[in-house]
Amino acid sequence: MSSLPFPRVLLGPGPSSVSGRVLEVVGRPPIGYLDPELLTIMPEIMAKLRTVFGTANEFTLPLTGTGMAGMECCLTNLLEPSDNVVIGVNGFFGGRMVEIARRCGANVTQVDFEWGTPVLPGPMREAASAILGKVKLIGCVHAETSTGTASPLAPIGALARELGALFVVDAVTSLGGMAVELDKNQVDACYSATQKCMGCLPGMAPVSFSDRAIEAIKARKSAPQSWYLDINLLKNYWSGDHMYHHTISTNMALAFRESLLEIDEEGLEARFERHRTASDVLINGLVEMGIEPFAQAGFRLPMLNSVKVPDGIADMEVRGRLLREYGIEIGGGLGAAKGKIWRIGLMGDSARLRNVELLLAALKRVLHA
Amino acid sequence: MSSLPFPRVLLGPGPSSVSGRVLEVVGRPPIGYLDPELLTIMPEIMAKLRTVFGTANEFTLPLTGTGMAGMECCLTNLLEPSDNVVIGVNGFFGGRMVEIARRCGANVTQVDFEWGTPVLPGPMREAASAILGKVKLIGCVHAETSTGTASPLAPIGALARELGALFVVDAVTSLGGMAVELDKNQVDACYSATQKCMGCLPGMAPVSFSDRAIEAIKARKSAPQSWYLDINLLKNYWSGDHMYHHTISTNMALAFRESLLEIDEEGLEARFERHRTASDVLINGLVEMGIEPFAQAGFRLPMLNSVKVPDGIADMEVRGRLLREYGIEIGGGLGAAKGKIWRIGLMGDSARLRNVELLLAALKRVLHA
Repeated sequence: MSSLPFPRVLLGPGPSSVSGRVLEVVGRPPIGYLDPELLTIMPEIMAKLRTVFGTANEFTLPLTGTGMAGMECCLTNLLEPSDNVVIGVNGFFGGRMVEIARRCGANVTQVDFEWGTPVLPGPMREAASAILGKVKLIGCVHAETSTGTASPLAPIGALARELGALFVVDAVTSLGGMAVELDKNQVDACYSATQKCMGCLPGMAPVSFSDRAIEAIKARKSAPQSWYLDINLLKNYWSGDHMYHHTISTNMALAFRESLLEIDEEGLEARFERHRTASDVLINGLVEMGIEPFAQAGFRLPMLNSVKVPDGIADMEVRGRLLREYGIEIGGGLGAAKGKIWRIGLMGDSARLRNVELLLAALKRVLHA
Repeated sequence: MSSLPFPRVLLGPGPSSVSGRVLEVVGRPPIGYLDPELLTIMPEIMAKLRTVFGTANEFTLPLTGTGMAGMECCLTNLLEPSDNVVIGVNGFFGGRMVEIARRCGANVTQVDFEWGTPVLPGPMREAASAILGKVKLIGCVHAETSTGTASPLAPIGALARELGALFVVDAVTSLGGMAVELDKNQVDACYSATQKCMGCLPGMAPVSFSDRAIEAIKARKSAPQSWYLDINLLKNYWSGDHMYHHTISTNMALAFRESLLEIDEEGLEARFERHRTASDVLINGLVEMGIEPFAQAGFRLPMLNSVKVPDGIADMEVRGRLLREYGIEIGGGLGAAKGKIWRIGLMGDSARLRNVELLLAALKRVLHA
């Protein structure tokens, strides 16, 4: 049998640490995907997910796959070849939305924003107005994990509605750690992941589709490219007659339900506040050490703190020592930000003052030793 | 906290029961998707998977998703619009190959075989010869979970090679419980699942692509429809520089490695023999009770035993009582076989004489009470 790895304090871009309560559930003997015990729990999972998403959307469920499968699910269900799409890109994951929308055969207009700044409605409107014909879909990332930047959703939701376009949002990093509020923000399709602020292991991707999105799917000329991610088939398994689609991991479903119960018990507002407080203490401590935030002030994410690697400091060496000597994982930069920033995640069960103080102390030792 | 469900003896079409050793690993605190501990284990997982698949294929890895994601992975990577495809269909899952190949835009010729009988090369050859232009791909299910029937792979592999076509095989139910032997059988792409004879939980889909398949992918005019299931991107994460693609569940990866270690320690031949022995005892016991096998003699699967529901017996009532009174799950019929057959799985850790004797005793009580 393999030995237990040196236990990790997960302060990277995800996965985050998971409570003992959730881990206890995931390690129980499995049950079948149509077991009556599971079927009674499925509506509860869907209902609690709606609360966290801030939506009344009937089509709200966790699919089997990671957040990237959630992204593909939203885009493949909504897009058909030649649809016009406008995507705001202010980091690595916005770029992935562009890539996946292109694989759906869509005509994608990419609107670039400087990394570390938010997606704003002005340039999106301008790009949309340059398109001949109808804009089918507007997309952006709520919490850009690659830069630690939040993009306000309401103004882009309003723009989408004005253009008669669907609004698709990546909430992989934000869901469970800050308000997402799909209905208030006029979001038509949204995807997330279980292993960040939702406090569970990776393996499922919560998705939610508005009635307008479902109408658009009904009006498709052809079936979505993906059968595995076809939201109608997923919905038929998750509710109604529970028509078999794929063999979900009941261990993951029950563990995710446990995370949702934890969120319920803590309360969303208290949970958001816990994320903010941990982040404030972290950023203050880092600034005192002369380490500067990367993302634009006013748009910094509490759950993903991006900071500039100080001049003359070797990124990989510092991260390697934190991991080897303290068991602490923090993230490096992705794509254009590789080697230039650190990404410190305070997500879900990881968003604790204990972790913040430990990281600050360890980082001080490593940088000044 | 939720209460523990009445523990199940999983003798349905999957998931199957999982050893305590594998469950202990899945419930450990998570580590990151680029953690050095994980990176050292990834090549080991790939190597052990090759042994079980019977292949030297470099592109052999478990993706994040279920067996159905594996099916979609193989077809979406290999097929482009207008490609000619011949699929042998002798049950529910063959039908799904047809559906997914059609969503890839392929021209699919479906060759039907009676449910309970194997896919045979004769009618496949006939169908292929009626196609104008090149046949790109031939597909079938090795172990049809919906009927309990095995289709011999070697003759279809030979036919595919003769036609210059790629041979895609569904080994969801067979892998780990009987010989699959990709290289000997000239299989070019194959997918499976972790929760059947591999002895793990659901959530990953082992896939393997031959060099010929990889050449065909390199020759594509366009990228595969699916980004999430793009085998080149998956391979770049699983080996070489470990380029980030998606956040795999390290808990599942480590648990799956534990199953692979168990398989290694038991030995493949001993494991196959254990599946055959359990099945023989089960079928003999059922026949003594007057319950007849469904699948054609000579082609019956050891890990998925399909039997006819006896005349005058209410399918759902019997399965309901087995579950409620004994905690035993067996499967009902899918699609055309609904209400007509039972599907008794003896897969992975479930393939034990203890389970067989328990089921026979319980079934006797339920049928004669």
